[in-house]
Amino acid sequence: MEFPTTPAVEAFTVEPGHRRNTVTDQIKNYILKNDLRPGDLMPTETEICATLGVSRSSVREAIRTLQALDIVEVRHGYGTYVGNLSLAPLVEGLVFRGVLSPENNFAALREVVEVREALDLAMAPAIVAALNGSADSVLKELVAVMVTKSTAGESFPDEDLAFHSRLLSYLDNALVGQLVAAFWEVNTVVYPLLGLPPAADMDETAKAHGAMLDAAQTGDLEAYKKAVIDHYQPLRRALEKATTVH
Amino acid sequence: MEFPTTPAVEAFTVEPGHRRNTVTDQIKNYILKNDLRPGDLMPTETEICATLGVSRSSVREAIRTLQALDIVEVRHGYGTYVGNLSLAPLVEGLVFRGVLSPENNFAALREVVEVREALDLAMAPAIVAALNGSADSVLKELVAVMVTKSTAGESFPDEDLAFHSRLLSYLDNALVGQLVAAFWEVNTVVYPLLGLPPAADMDETAKAHGAMLDAAQTGDLEAYKKAVIDHYQPLRRALEKATTVH
Repeated sequence: MEFPTTPAVEAFTVEPGHRRNTVTDQIKNYILKNDLRPGDLMPTETEICATLGVSRSSVREAIRTLQALDIVEVRHGYGTYVGNLSLAPLVEGLVFRGVLSPENNFAALREVVEVREALDLAMAPAIVAALNGSADSVLKELVAVMVTKSTAGESFPDEDLAFHSRLLSYLDNALVGQLVAAFWEVNTVVYPLLGLPPAADMDETAKAHGAMLDAAQTGDLEAYKKAVIDHYQPLRRALEKATTVH
Repeated sequence: MEFPTTPAVEAFTVEPGHRRNTVTDQIKNYILKNDLRPGDLMPTETEICATLGVSRSSVREAIRTLQALDIVEVRHGYGTYVGNLSLAPLVEGLVFRGVLSPENNFAALREVVEVREALDLAMAPAIVAALNGSADSVLKELVAVMVTKSTAGESFPDEDLAFHSRLLSYLDNALVGQLVAAFWEVNTVVYPLLGLPPAADMDETAKAHGAMLDAAQTGDLEAYKKAVIDHYQPLRRALEKATTVH
Protein backbone atom coordinates (compact mmCIF):
# COMPACT_ATOMS: atom_id res chain seq x y z
CA MET A 1 0.00 0.00 0.00
CA GLU A 2 1.34 3.43 -0.98
CA PHE A 3 0.19 6.87 -0.01
CA PRO A 4 -0.57 8.39 -3.40
CA THR A 5 1.27 11.68 -3.82
CA THR A 6 -1.84 13.38 -5.21
CA PRO A 7 -4.57 11.58 -3.34
CA ALA A 8 -8.30 12.13 -3.40
CA VAL A 9 -7.84 13.92 -0.09
CA GLU A 10 -6.55 16.85 -2.09
CA ALA A 11 -9.26 16.81 -4.72
CA PHE A 12 -12.12 16.89 -2.22
CA THR A 13 -10.75 19.10 0.52
CA VAL A 14 -13.55 21.54 1.11
CA GLU A 15 -11.17 24.31 1.97
CA PRO A 16 -7.81 23.75 0.28
CA GLY A 17 -4.73 25.72 1.18
CA HIS A 18 -3.13 22.65 2.68
CA ARG A 19 -0.35 21.35 0.43
CA ARG A 20 0.78 17.71 0.38
CA ASN A 21 4.47 17.21 0.83
CA THR A 22 6.20 14.29 -0.81
CA VAL A 23 8.76 13.73 1.94
CA THR A 24 5.91 13.80 4.46
CA ASP A 25 4.14 11.07 2.48
CA GLN A 26 7.36 9.07 2.17
CA ILE A 27 7.80 9.07 5.95
CA LYS A 28 4.17 8.00 6.37
CA ASN A 29 4.78 5.17 3.93
CA TYR A 30 7.87 4.18 5.90
CA ILE A 31 5.76 3.87 9.07
CA LEU A 32 3.16 1.79 7.23
CA LYS A 33 5.63 -0.49 5.41
CA ASN A 34 7.55 -1.18 8.59
CA ASP A 35 4.34 -1.83 10.48
CA LEU A 36 5.19 0.70 13.19
CA ARG A 37 2.64 1.57 15.89
CA PRO A 38 2.08 4.60 18.17
CA GLY A 39 4.98 4.77 20.62
CA ASP A 40 7.43 2.89 18.36
CA LEU A 41 10.86 4.49 17.85
CA MET A 42 11.47 6.02 14.42
CA PRO A 43 14.85 6.03 12.65
CA THR A 44 17.08 9.07 13.22
CA GLU A 45 16.99 12.07 10.92
CA THR A 46 20.27 10.90 9.37
CA GLU A 47 18.89 7.43 8.71
CA ILE A 48 15.70 8.86 7.16
CA CYS A 49 17.79 11.12 4.90
CA ALA A 50 19.79 8.10 3.72
CA THR A 51 16.79 5.79 3.32
CA LEU A 52 14.70 8.26 1.35
CA GLY A 53 17.62 9.93 -0.41
CA VAL A 54 16.47 13.42 0.51
CA SER A 55 18.06 16.42 2.20
CA ARG A 56 18.25 16.93 5.94
CA SER A 57 16.27 20.17 5.77
CA SER A 58 13.38 18.55 3.92
CA VAL A 59 13.29 15.68 6.44
CA ARG A 60 13.31 18.19 9.27
CA GLU A 61 10.42 20.11 7.71
CA ALA A 62 8.44 16.91 7.14
CA ILE A 63 9.00 15.76 10.73
CA ARG A 64 7.80 19.13 11.96
CA THR A 65 4.63 18.78 9.86
CA LEU A 66 4.01 15.24 11.08
CA GLN A 67 4.63 16.36 14.66
CA ALA A 68 1.96 19.07 14.33
CA LEU A 69 -0.46 16.36 13.17
CA ASP A 70 0.53 14.04 16.07
CA ILE A 71 1.63 11.43 13.52
CA VAL A 72 5.12 11.54 15.04
CA GLU A 73 6.22 12.68 18.48
CA VAL A 74 9.65 14.26 19.02
CA ARG A 75 10.98 13.59 22.52
CA HIS A 76 13.97 15.88 22.78
CA GLY A 77 17.05 13.99 23.89
CA TYR A 78 15.41 10.63 23.26
CA GLY A 79 14.37 10.45 19.63
CA THR A 80 11.37 10.55 17.34
CA TYR A 81 8.48 8.15 17.93
CA VAL A 82 5.30 7.32 16.08
CA GLY A 83 2.68 9.69 17.53
CA ASN A 84 -0.62 8.96 19.20
CA LEU A 85 -2.70 10.10 16.22
CA SER A 86 -4.83 12.07 18.67
CA LEU A 87 -7.33 14.81 17.85
CA ALA A 88 -5.04 17.47 19.37
CA PRO A 89 -4.54 19.13 15.93
CA LEU A 90 -8.32 19.45 15.56
CA VAL A 91 -8.53 21.06 19.00
CA GLU A 92 -5.69 23.46 18.26
CA GLY A 93 -7.25 24.56 14.96
CA LEU A 94 -10.74 24.98 16.38
CA VAL A 95 -9.52 26.87 19.46
CA PHE A 96 -7.76 29.32 17.19
CA ARG A 97 -10.80 29.61 14.95
CA GLY A 98 -12.95 30.17 18.04
CA VAL A 99 -10.93 33.14 19.27
CA LEU A 100 -10.26 34.63 15.82
CA SER A 101 -13.68 36.16 15.23
CA PRO A 102 -15.17 37.27 18.55
CA GLU A 103 -17.00 40.13 16.87
CA ASN A 104 -18.94 37.59 14.87
CA ASN A 105 -21.37 37.04 17.75
CA PHE A 106 -19.33 34.12 19.09
CA ALA A 107 -20.58 32.08 16.13
CA ALA A 108 -17.66 29.64 16.16
CA LEU A 109 -18.21 28.81 19.84
CA ARG A 110 -21.96 28.45 19.37
CA GLU A 111 -21.30 26.01 16.51
CA VAL A 112 -19.03 23.95 18.78
CA VAL A 113 -21.71 23.79 21.49
CA GLU A 114 -24.28 22.68 18.89
CA VAL A 115 -21.96 19.94 17.63
CA ARG A 116 -21.40 18.75 21.21
CA GLU A 117 -25.14 18.52 21.80
CA ALA A 118 -25.71 16.81 18.44
CA LEU A 119 -23.09 14.14 19.20
CA ASP A 120 -24.47 13.58 22.71
CA LEU A 121 -28.00 13.18 21.34
CA ALA A 122 -26.84 10.93 18.49
CA MET A 123 -25.14 8.63 21.00
CA ALA A 124 -28.13 8.65 23.38
CA PRO A 125 -29.74 5.35 22.25
CA ALA A 126 -26.43 3.45 22.46
CA ILE A 127 -25.52 4.99 25.84
CA VAL A 128 -28.92 4.23 27.36
CA ALA A 129 -28.83 0.68 25.98
CA ALA A 130 -25.35 0.14 27.44
CA LEU A 131 -26.09 1.55 30.91
CA ASN A 132 -29.67 0.29 31.35
CA GLY A 133 -29.88 -1.70 34.59
CA SER A 134 -26.31 -0.93 35.64
CA ALA A 135 -25.06 1.18 38.57
CA ASP A 136 -21.79 2.95 37.86
CA SER A 137 -20.40 4.20 41.20
CA VAL A 138 -17.65 6.25 39.53
CA LEU A 139 -20.17 8.24 37.48
CA LYS A 140 -22.35 8.67 40.58
CA GLU A 141 -19.42 10.05 42.56
CA LEU A 142 -18.48 12.43 39.74
CA VAL A 143 -22.02 13.82 39.75
CA ALA A 144 -21.87 14.26 43.55
CA VAL A 145 -18.60 16.21 43.30
CA MET A 146 -19.96 18.40 40.48
CA VAL A 147 -23.07 19.25 42.53
CA THR A 148 -20.99 19.98 45.66
CA LYS A 149 -18.56 22.19 43.74
CA SER A 150 -21.26 24.12 41.86
CA THR A 151 -23.14 24.71 45.14
CA ALA A 152 -19.91 26.18 46.54
CA GLY A 153 -19.63 28.42 43.49
CA GLU A 154 -16.70 26.47 42.08
CA SER A 155 -16.28 25.27 38.50
CA PHE A 156 -15.86 21.56 37.81
CA PRO A 157 -14.13 21.07 34.44
CA ASP A 158 -12.14 17.96 35.43
CA GLU A 159 -15.19 16.09 36.70
CA ASP A 160 -17.23 17.25 33.72
CA LEU A 161 -14.73 15.82 31.22
CA ALA A 162 -14.25 12.66 33.28
CA PHE A 163 -18.02 12.12 33.36
CA HIS A 164 -18.45 12.41 29.58
CA SER A 165 -15.34 10.36 28.84
CA ARG A 166 -16.43 7.52 31.11
CA LEU A 167 -19.98 7.59 29.75
CA LEU A 168 -18.66 7.27 26.19
CA SER A 169 -16.22 4.50 27.14
CA TYR A 170 -19.30 2.24 27.23
CA LEU A 171 -19.50 2.57 23.44
CA ASP A 172 -17.56 0.40 21.01
CA ASN A 173 -16.31 3.50 19.20
CA ALA A 174 -13.18 5.26 20.46
CA LEU A 175 -13.47 7.98 17.81
CA VAL A 176 -16.78 9.27 19.19
CA GLY A 177 -15.28 9.54 22.68
CA GLN A 178 -12.29 11.42 21.33
CA LEU A 179 -14.46 13.79 19.32
CA VAL A 180 -16.67 14.56 22.31
CA ALA A 181 -13.58 15.19 24.45
CA ALA A 182 -12.04 17.34 21.69
CA PHE A 183 -15.11 19.58 21.35
CA TRP A 184 -15.48 19.76 25.12
CA GLU A 185 -11.88 20.98 25.25
CA VAL A 186 -12.34 23.56 22.49
CA ASN A 187 -15.43 24.85 24.32
CA THR A 188 -13.68 24.98 27.69
CA VAL A 189 -10.54 26.70 26.39
CA VAL A 190 -12.23 29.20 24.07
CA TYR A 191 -14.92 30.37 26.49
CA PRO A 192 -12.67 32.25 28.93
CA LEU A 193 -10.33 33.39 26.12
CA LEU A 194 -13.29 35.28 24.67
CA GLY A 195 -13.62 37.15 27.96
CA LEU A 196 -17.02 35.63 28.68
CA PRO A 197 -18.12 35.64 32.34
CA PRO A 198 -18.71 32.22 33.93
CA ALA A 199 -22.16 30.94 33.01
CA ALA A 200 -24.74 31.53 35.73
CA ASP A 201 -26.77 28.59 36.95
CA MET A 202 -23.95 26.09 36.50
CA ASP A 203 -25.64 24.11 39.28
CA GLU A 204 -28.26 23.26 36.65
CA THR A 205 -25.53 21.73 34.51
CA ALA A 206 -24.11 19.83 37.50
CA LYS A 207 -27.54 18.43 38.39
CA ALA A 208 -28.39 17.62 34.76
CA HIS A 209 -25.41 15.23 34.69
CA GLY A 210 -27.14 13.38 37.52
CA ALA A 211 -30.40 13.31 35.54
CA MET A 212 -28.50 11.92 32.52
CA LEU A 213 -27.03 9.16 34.66
CA ASP A 214 -30.35 8.25 36.30
CA ALA A 215 -32.15 8.19 32.95
CA ALA A 216 -29.48 6.01 31.32
CA GLN A 217 -29.43 3.53 34.19
CA THR A 218 -33.23 3.22 34.22
CA GLY A 219 -33.33 2.88 30.42
CA ASP A 220 -35.38 6.04 29.86
CA LEU A 221 -34.19 7.35 26.49
CA GLU A 222 -36.48 10.39 26.32
CA ALA A 223 -35.52 11.49 29.85
CA TYR A 224 -31.85 11.05 28.91
CA LYS A 225 -32.22 13.25 25.82
CA LYS A 226 -34.05 15.92 27.83
CA ALA A 227 -31.27 15.89 30.45
CA VAL A 228 -28.64 16.26 27.71
CA ILE A 229 -30.43 19.34 26.35
CA ASP A 230 -30.99 20.76 29.87
CA HIS A 231 -27.31 20.28 30.66
CA TYR A 232 -26.33 22.73 27.88
CA GLN A 233 -28.90 25.38 28.83
CA PRO A 234 -26.73 27.50 31.17
CA LEU A 235 -23.99 27.57 28.51
CA ARG A 236 -26.44 28.44 25.74
CA ARG A 237 -28.01 31.21 27.85
CA ALA A 238 -24.59 32.67 28.62
CA LEU A 239 -23.73 32.71 24.92
CA GLU A 240 -27.06 34.30 23.96
CA LYS A 241 -26.65 36.96 26.62
CA ALA A 242 -23.12 37.76 25.47
CA THR A 243 -24.27 37.93 21.85
CA THR A 244 -26.99 40.44 22.76
CA VAL A 245 -24.63 42.60 24.83
CA HIS A 246 -21.74 42.77 22.35
CA MET B 1 -6.29 38.47 24.88
CA GLU B 2 -3.19 36.28 25.08
CA PHE B 3 -2.69 32.66 24.20
CA PRO B 4 -1.50 31.24 27.51
CA THR B 5 1.75 29.36 27.03
CA THR B 6 0.55 26.49 29.20
CA PRO B 7 -3.14 26.52 28.42
CA ALA B 8 -5.90 24.23 29.58
CA VAL B 9 -5.73 22.62 26.15
CA GLU B 10 -2.59 20.86 27.36
CA ALA B 11 -3.97 19.75 30.70
CA PHE B 12 -7.02 18.05 29.23
CA THR B 13 -5.70 16.61 26.01
CA VAL B 14 -6.91 13.04 26.11
CA GLU B 15 -3.88 11.77 24.28
CA PRO B 16 -0.89 14.05 24.88
CA GLY B 17 2.30 13.80 22.88
CA HIS B 18 1.61 17.12 21.27
CA ARG B 19 3.92 19.80 22.62
CA ARG B 20 3.05 23.48 22.66
CA ASN B 21 5.63 25.76 21.17
CA THR B 22 6.08 29.26 22.49
CA VAL B 23 7.01 30.81 19.14
CA THR B 24 3.95 29.13 17.63
CA ASP B 25 1.78 30.76 20.30
CA GLN B 26 3.50 34.11 19.77
CA ILE B 27 2.71 34.01 16.07
CA LYS B 28 -0.91 33.12 16.87
CA ASN B 29 -1.06 36.08 19.23
CA TYR B 30 0.36 38.28 16.49
CA ILE B 31 -2.49 37.24 14.18
CA LEU B 32 -5.06 37.92 16.90
CA LYS B 33 -3.63 41.25 18.04
CA ASN B 34 -3.38 42.54 14.50
CA ASP B 35 -6.88 41.35 13.76
CA LEU B 36 -5.78 39.37 10.71
CA ARG B 37 -8.25 37.14 8.87
CA PRO B 38 -7.93 34.05 6.63
CA GLY B 39 -6.23 35.13 3.41
CA ASP B 40 -4.49 38.17 4.94
CA LEU B 41 -0.77 38.52 4.23
CA MET B 42 1.55 37.78 7.17
CA PRO B 43 4.85 39.60 7.80
CA THR B 44 7.97 38.03 6.29
CA GLU B 45 10.11 35.57 8.24
CA THR B 46 12.67 38.34 8.80
CA GLU B 47 10.02 40.70 10.13
CA ILE B 48 8.62 38.04 12.49
CA CYS B 49 12.14 37.32 13.80
CA ALA B 50 12.62 41.01 14.53
CA THR B 51 9.17 41.54 16.04
CA LEU B 52 9.31 38.54 18.34
CA GLY B 53 13.06 38.69 18.98
CA VAL B 54 13.56 35.02 18.16
CA SER B 55 15.81 33.09 15.79
CA ARG B 56 15.06 32.42 12.16
CA SER B 57 15.11 28.65 12.65
CA SER B 58 12.52 28.78 15.44
CA VAL B 59 10.26 31.00 13.32
CA ARG B 60 10.66 28.60 10.41
CA GLU B 61 9.73 25.64 12.62
CA ALA B 62 6.73 27.47 14.05
CA ILE B 63 5.51 28.45 10.58
CA ARG B 64 5.82 24.82 9.49
CA THR B 65 3.71 23.73 12.49
CA LEU B 66 1.08 26.39 11.82
CA GLN B 67 1.06 25.44 8.15
CA ALA B 68 0.30 21.80 9.04
CA LEU B 69 -2.64 23.04 11.12
CA ASP B 70 -3.86 25.29 8.27
CA ILE B 71 -3.47 28.30 10.57
CA VAL B 72 -1.06 29.81 8.04
CA GLU B 73 -0.66 29.08 4.35
CA VAL B 74 2.73 29.36 2.65
CA ARG B 75 2.39 30.30 -1.03
CA HIS B 76 5.88 29.79 -2.38
CA GLY B 77 7.10 32.85 -4.25
CA TYR B 78 4.29 34.99 -2.84
CA GLY B 79 4.48 34.94 0.94
CA THR B 80 2.81 33.56 4.03
CA TYR B 81 -0.90 34.17 4.56
CA VAL B 82 -3.33 33.46 7.38
CA GLY B 83 -4.71 30.00 6.61
CA ASN B 84 -8.27 28.86 6.09
CA LEU B 85 -8.50 27.09 9.48
CA SER B 86 -10.00 24.13 7.63
CA LEU B 87 -10.44 20.60 8.95
CA ALA B 88 -7.71 19.31 6.58
CA PRO B 89 -5.43 18.42 9.55
CA LEU B 90 -8.23 16.29 11.04
CA VAL B 91 -8.67 14.51 7.71
CA GLU B 92 -4.94 13.88 7.32
CA GLY B 93 -4.64 12.43 10.83
CA LEU B 94 -7.72 10.23 10.54
CA VAL B 95 -6.75 8.95 7.09
CA PHE B 96 -3.39 7.86 8.48
CA ARG B 97 -5.03 6.31 11.52
CA GLY B 98 -7.45 4.51 9.22
CA VAL B 99 -4.73 2.83 7.18
CA LEU B 100 -2.37 2.17 10.10
CA SER B 101 -4.24 -0.79 11.59
CA PRO B 102 -5.92 -2.77 8.82
CA GLU B 103 -5.48 -6.03 10.74
CA ASN B 104 -7.70 -4.59 13.45
CA ASN B 105 -10.85 -5.56 11.50
CA PHE B 106 -11.04 -2.14 9.85
CA ALA B 107 -12.14 -0.75 13.22
CA ALA B 108 -10.98 2.81 12.49
CA LEU B 109 -12.98 2.95 9.25
CA ARG B 110 -16.07 1.46 10.89
CA GLU B 111 -15.85 4.14 13.59
CA VAL B 112 -15.72 6.85 10.92
CA VAL B 113 -18.82 5.44 9.19
CA GLU B 114 -20.65 5.35 12.53
CA VAL B 115 -19.71 8.98 13.24
CA ARG B 116 -20.96 9.98 9.78
CA GLU B 117 -24.30 8.29 10.40
CA ALA B 118 -24.56 9.77 13.91
CA LEU B 119 -23.99 13.31 12.60
CA ASP B 120 -26.48 12.83 9.76
CA LEU B 121 -29.12 11.54 12.18
CA ALA B 122 -28.39 14.29 14.71
CA MET B 123 -28.93 16.91 12.01
CA ALA B 124 -32.09 15.23 10.67
CA PRO B 125 -34.67 17.39 12.54
CA ALA B 126 -32.98 20.65 11.48
CA ILE B 127 -32.54 19.49 7.85
CA VAL B 128 -36.16 18.34 7.54
CA ALA B 129 -37.40 21.58 9.14
CA ALA B 130 -35.29 23.63 6.71
CA LEU B 131 -36.27 21.76 3.52
CA ASN B 132 -39.93 21.05 4.34
CA GLY B 133 -42.07 22.41 1.52
CA SER B 134 -39.14 23.41 -0.67
CA ALA B 135 -38.00 21.97 -4.00
CA ASP B 136 -34.25 22.13 -4.52
CA SER B 137 -33.55 21.43 -8.19
CA VAL B 138 -29.78 21.15 -7.65
CA LEU B 139 -30.20 18.35 -5.09
CA LYS B 140 -32.74 16.67 -7.39
CA GLU B 141 -30.29 16.75 -10.30
CA LEU B 142 -27.46 15.38 -8.13
CA VAL B 143 -29.67 12.42 -7.16
CA ALA B 144 -30.50 11.82 -10.84
CA VAL B 145 -26.82 11.76 -11.79
CA MET B 146 -25.97 9.41 -8.89
CA VAL B 147 -28.72 6.98 -9.95
CA THR B 148 -27.63 7.12 -13.60
CA LYS B 149 -23.97 6.56 -12.73
CA SER B 150 -24.64 3.71 -10.30
CA THR B 151 -26.90 2.01 -12.86
CA ALA B 152 -23.99 2.21 -15.30
CA GLY B 153 -21.70 0.66 -12.68
CA GLU B 154 -19.83 3.91 -12.10
CA SER B 155 -18.97 5.43 -8.73
CA PHE B 156 -20.23 8.92 -7.88
CA PRO B 157 -18.03 10.49 -5.18
CA ASP B 158 -18.24 14.07 -6.47
CA GLU B 159 -22.04 14.06 -6.57
CA ASP B 160 -22.22 12.31 -3.21
CA LEU B 161 -20.11 14.97 -1.48
CA ALA B 162 -21.89 17.79 -3.33
CA PHE B 163 -25.27 16.38 -2.19
CA HIS B 164 -24.31 16.23 1.49
CA SER B 165 -22.56 19.61 1.41
CA ARG B 166 -25.55 21.33 -0.16
CA LEU B 167 -27.98 19.64 2.21
CA LEU B 168 -25.95 20.87 5.20
CA SER B 169 -25.62 24.37 3.80
CA TYR B 170 -29.27 24.81 4.83
CA LEU B 171 -28.11 24.75 8.47
CA ASP B 172 -26.83 27.80 10.35
CA ASN B 173 -23.73 25.87 11.41
CA ALA B 174 -20.71 25.77 9.09
CA LEU B 175 -18.78 23.49 11.46
CA VAL B 176 -21.26 20.64 11.07
CA GLY B 177 -21.00 20.84 7.29
CA GLN B 178 -17.21 20.80 7.47
CA LEU B 179 -17.20 17.84 9.86
CA VAL B 180 -19.54 15.83 7.65
CA ALA B 181 -17.37 16.64 4.61
CA ALA B 182 -14.21 15.76 6.56
CA PHE B 183 -15.48 12.34 7.65
CA TRP B 184 -16.86 11.69 4.18
CA GLU B 185 -13.38 12.41 2.83
CA VAL B 186 -11.62 10.17 5.36
CA ASN B 187 -14.06 7.38 4.48
CA THR B 188 -13.61 7.86 0.73
CA VAL B 189 -9.81 8.01 0.85
CA VAL B 190 -9.23 5.21 3.36
CA TYR B 191 -11.61 2.68 1.81
CA PRO B 192 -9.60 1.95 -1.38
CA LEU B 193 -6.25 2.35 0.47
CA LEU B 194 -7.29 -0.64 2.61
CA GLY B 195 -7.64 -2.67 -0.58
CA LEU B 196 -11.39 -3.08 -0.09
CA PRO B 197 -13.41 -3.91 -3.22
CA PRO B 198 -16.08 -1.38 -4.24
CA ALA B 199 -19.24 -1.90 -2.19
CA ALA B 200 -21.87 -3.90 -4.02
CA ASP B 201 -25.37 -2.47 -4.33
CA MET B 202 -24.17 1.11 -4.55
CA ASP B 203 -27.38 1.76 -6.48
CA GLU B 204 -29.12 1.42 -3.08
CA THR B 205 -26.98 4.28 -1.79
CA ALA B 206 -27.71 6.37 -4.88
CA LYS B 207 -31.48 5.83 -4.55
CA ALA B 208 -31.43 6.40 -0.77
CA HIS B 209 -30.16 9.93 -1.44
CA GLY B 210 -33.36 10.43 -3.40
CA ALA B 211 -35.43 9.07 -0.52
CA MET B 212 -33.62 11.45 1.87
CA LEU B 213 -34.46 14.40 -0.38
CA ASP B 214 -38.11 13.41 -0.83
CA ALA B 215 -38.57 12.84 2.91
CA ALA B 216 -36.96 16.19 3.82
CA GLN B 217 -39.03 18.13 1.28
CA THR B 218 -42.29 16.52 2.48
CA GLY B 219 -41.33 17.09 6.13
CA ASP B 220 -41.29 13.38 7.02
CA LEU B 221 -38.63 13.11 9.73
CA GLU B 222 -38.95 9.37 10.33
CA ALA B 223 -38.71 8.58 6.61
CA TYR B 224 -35.67 10.86 6.39
CA LYS B 225 -33.91 9.05 9.24
CA LYS B 226 -34.70 5.66 7.68
CA ALA B 227 -33.28 6.82 4.33
CA VAL B 228 -30.09 8.03 6.07
CA ILE B 229 -29.61 4.60 7.66
CA ASP B 230 -30.45 2.80 4.39
CA HIS B 231 -27.96 4.97 2.54
CA TYR B 232 -25.08 3.57 4.66
CA GLN B 233 -26.15 -0.07 4.33
CA PRO B 234 -24.07 -1.04 1.26
CA LEU B 235 -20.97 0.46 2.91
CA ARG B 236 -21.69 -1.25 6.24
CA ARG B 237 -22.27 -4.60 4.48
CA ALA B 238 -19.00 -4.25 2.55
CA LEU B 239 -17.13 -3.57 5.80
CA GLU B 240 -18.77 -6.50 7.61
CA LYS B 241 -17.95 -8.82 4.72
CA ALA B 242 -14.31 -7.69 4.65
CA THR B 243 -14.03 -8.11 8.42
CA THR B 244 -15.32 -11.68 8.19
CA VAL B 245 -12.98 -12.57 5.31
CA HIS B 246 -9.77 -11.08 6.78
